[in-house]
Amino acid sequence: MHLGIPRIALSHLGIGMDCSITPLRHGGLSLVQTTDFLYPLVEDPYIMGKIACANVLSDLYALGVTECDNMLMLLGVSTKLSEKERDVVIPLMMRGFKDCAYEAGCNVTGGQSVLNPWITIGGVATSVCQPNEFIIPNDAVIGDVLVLTKPLGTQVAVSAYHWLEQQDRWNRIKLVVSEEDVHKAYQRAMDTMARLNRTCARLMHKYNAHGATDVTGFGLLGHAQNLAKSQNNEVSFVIHNLPIIAKMAAVAKACGNMFQLLQGHSPETSGGLLICLPREQAAAYCKDIEKSEGYQAWIIGIVEKGNRKARIIEKPRVIEVPAKEKDGEIW
Amino acid sequence: MHLGIPRIALSHLGIGMDCSITPLRHGGLSLVQTTDFLYPLVEDPYIMGKIACANVLSDLYALGVTECDNMLMLLGVSTKLSEKERDVVIPLMMRGFKDCAYEAGCNVTGGQSVLNPWITIGGVATSVCQPNEFIIPNDAVIGDVLVLTKPLGTQVAVSAYHWLEQQDRWNRIKLVVSEEDVHKAYQRAMDTMARLNRTCARLMHKYNAHGATDVTGFGLLGHAQNLAKSQNNEVSFVIHNLPIIAKMAAVAKACGNMFQLLQGHSPETSGGLLICLPREQAAAYCKDIEKSEGYQAWIIGIVEKGNRKARIIEKPRVIEVPAKEKDGEIW
Repeated sequence: MHLGIPRIALSHLGIGMDCSITPLRHGGLSLVQTTDFLYPLVEDPYIMGKIACANVLSDLYALGVTECDNMLMLLGVSTKLSEKERDVVIPLMMRGFKDCAYEAGCNVTGGQSVLNPWITIGGVATSVCQPNEFIIPNDAVIGDVLVLTKPLGTQVAVSAYHWLEQQDRWNRIKLVVSEEDVHKAYQRAMDTMARLNRTCARLMHKYNAHGATDVTGFGLLGHAQNLAKSQNNEVSFVIHNLPIIAKMAAVAKACGNMFQLLQGHSPETSGGLLICLPREQAAAYCKDIEKSEGYQAWIIGIVEKGNRKARIIEKPRVIEVPAKEKDGEIW
Repeated sequence: MHLGIPRIALSHLGIGMDCSITPLRHGGLSLVQTTDFLYPLVEDPYIMGKIACANVLSDLYALGVTECDNMLMLLGVSTKLSEKERDVVIPLMMRGFKDCAYEAGCNVTGGQSVLNPWITIGGVATSVCQPNEFIIPNDAVIGDVLVLTKPLGTQVAVSAYHWLEQQDRWNRIKLVVSEEDVHKAYQRAMDTMARLNRTCARLMHKYNAHGATDVTGFGLLGHAQNLAKSQNNEVSFVIHNLPIIAKMAAVAKACGNMFQLLQGHSPETSGGLLICLPREQAAAYCKDIEKSEGYQAWIIGIVEKGNRKARIIEKPRVIEVPAKEKDGEIW
C-alpha cells in the first residue's frame, strides 16, 4: 500500500508496513486495512482478476492476518474498449477477483468502478483483528533467517512472453531462451501471481515469525530494505539466494540493466512473503508449506548485526524454479 | 457506492444501501464500509479534495454512522499534467481531502495512487459499529415526512459556471441568469458539496429517523426510489418541494431536457441526506441543524401508503436557496 502516496500509511506505528493498523473504539480491536490496484499484465481477464485480488490480500497476509473480513473491488473501466469487449472482459475480471476472494474466505460486498482510458483493477481488504491475530514486522533478531515464499521474475516472464510478438525484442533473448521456456515461465508467473499467501501467513504464527513483508513493486531488495529499516533491534539483512522462475535470470542478463532482477530491483506483482524466522524453525516452516500447498519456499538469507540495511551478496546463488505442472488446472 | 458495480453492494442485507454492512467475528460488531471516487468538477484543487472526502463520508452518514474509524485515499494522477502542474495540484487535492477527514474526526492512514489520463480522487471510509450506531434504511412508516439536508442543483451550477467561458452555451442561459448569479451559485455549490453530513447523521438518532440515503449520481428521485424500494412497510414517497440553489431552476429550464433537475434526475455530487422522519419530529430536526450548523434543511415530501415507489408531484414548489454569505471563509 506504500506506492504512490509515500509514507502516508505509516502514521500509526511509524514504520513501513503493508497495511494501516488503526486502534478501534471497541474491545481492544484493531482495524487492519490495505488498498492496491494494478494495470492488466496478463492476457486472461479471469486470471488477471485473481491476480489483482491475491495482490491486495497479500498485504494483510504479510502481517500474519489470515482472515479478511471484507473486500471491496475497485475497477477502472477503459473508455477504449468496444461495448462487446467491455461486456466480455470486465465481467471475467470481476469473476476472477470474486473467485479469488471466495478462495480466501472473504466476500466482495461492494466497490466502485469508474471510466478511464486505462484499465485498472484492485481492491480494499479489511480485517478487524485481536492483538494476537497480526504480527508487527519489527522484531527480527540476530541469527534469524529470511524465507521467501514465491519465486522472483514475474515481470521478466510477462515481458518475455509479450516479446514473442516483437521480433526486435525477441532477437535480444532468443539465444538464451526458447519459445517453450517462455511459455512455461509465463504460465508459472500467472500461477504464482494468482496464488494466495494465506497459508504462508497462517504458518507464520505456528513457527513464531518475527515479521514479514510482501514482495511487490519495489522488488526483493527494496522491500527487504523497507523491512530492515523498521526493525527494533540493530540488525541487517543479507540475501545469498535468489529463487527465480526458470530461465528468467538468463533473460534478465541478456537484457543488460533493463530488469535489475539479480540486483533485486525487478518489480514483482503479487509476489511472495519475505519472512524473518528463527533459524531452527525455518526449515520446518518451508516443509510445512510444501506439505500443505505443494509449493516450495526458500531460505534466501540471514539476519546479522547491523544498521537496519539490506543487501544481496556479490554473487548470489540463483535457484532455477521450474515451471509447475498442475494437471487439470487453467495453466 | 452502488454506481458501477450494480447491486454488488447489497449482498448482506439484500437492500439498496450506500454502504456494505458486514457482521464481524468479534463482539457483535459490524463493519460499515463504502468507497467512491470522482472526477474533478471544480477549479480549486483544495476544495476538490474536500468535496471528494465529504462525498465518501456521506455514505456512512446516510446510515446514521457518525464515527469514521479509518479513511484511505484513492488517487488517479493524470499523465497529462506537467510535472509542475502535478506537484502543485495533487498535494493541494490531498491536503483538502485530509483536512476534510480531520474535520470529520478521522485519519487518512493510507491509500493508493495510480497514473491514468483522467484525474480521479476518492476514498474508502470504514467504521466498526455496535448495532445502535447505524440505522438500517428500511423502516419508513405511513405519516413520516421526507427531509432533505442540502439544496439541489450542484451540477447545474458547476456547468453554468464553466459556460461563462463558452459563448454559445452562455447565450442559452444569459437571459435567465446574470454572471453574478452564476458566480454565487458556483460558490454555494462548492460550499454545499464540501460540507459534511455528519451533524445531520448525528441528529438522525436524536429524532428517531426511520432511514435515509444520500443524494448523489442518480439525482433526488433516483435515490428516493432506491430508498422506497427497500422499505419493510408498504409505503411510497411523494415529493412536493424542491430546494434548489438560487436561479439554477431557471437555468435548468432554459436548457430544456438537458439536466432534468425538476424531474429529480439531475446528478448531485456530495448531496444532502434524504431522511424519513416521524412527522412530529421533522420540524425540530430541521431547527436543530440550523441551530448547530447555520444551514437550512427542508421538509420536501411525505410517506404515504403505496407499493414502494417514489414520485415528484406535477408542479413541485421550487424553493430558491440563496447563495450563503460566509465571511472569512474560502468561498
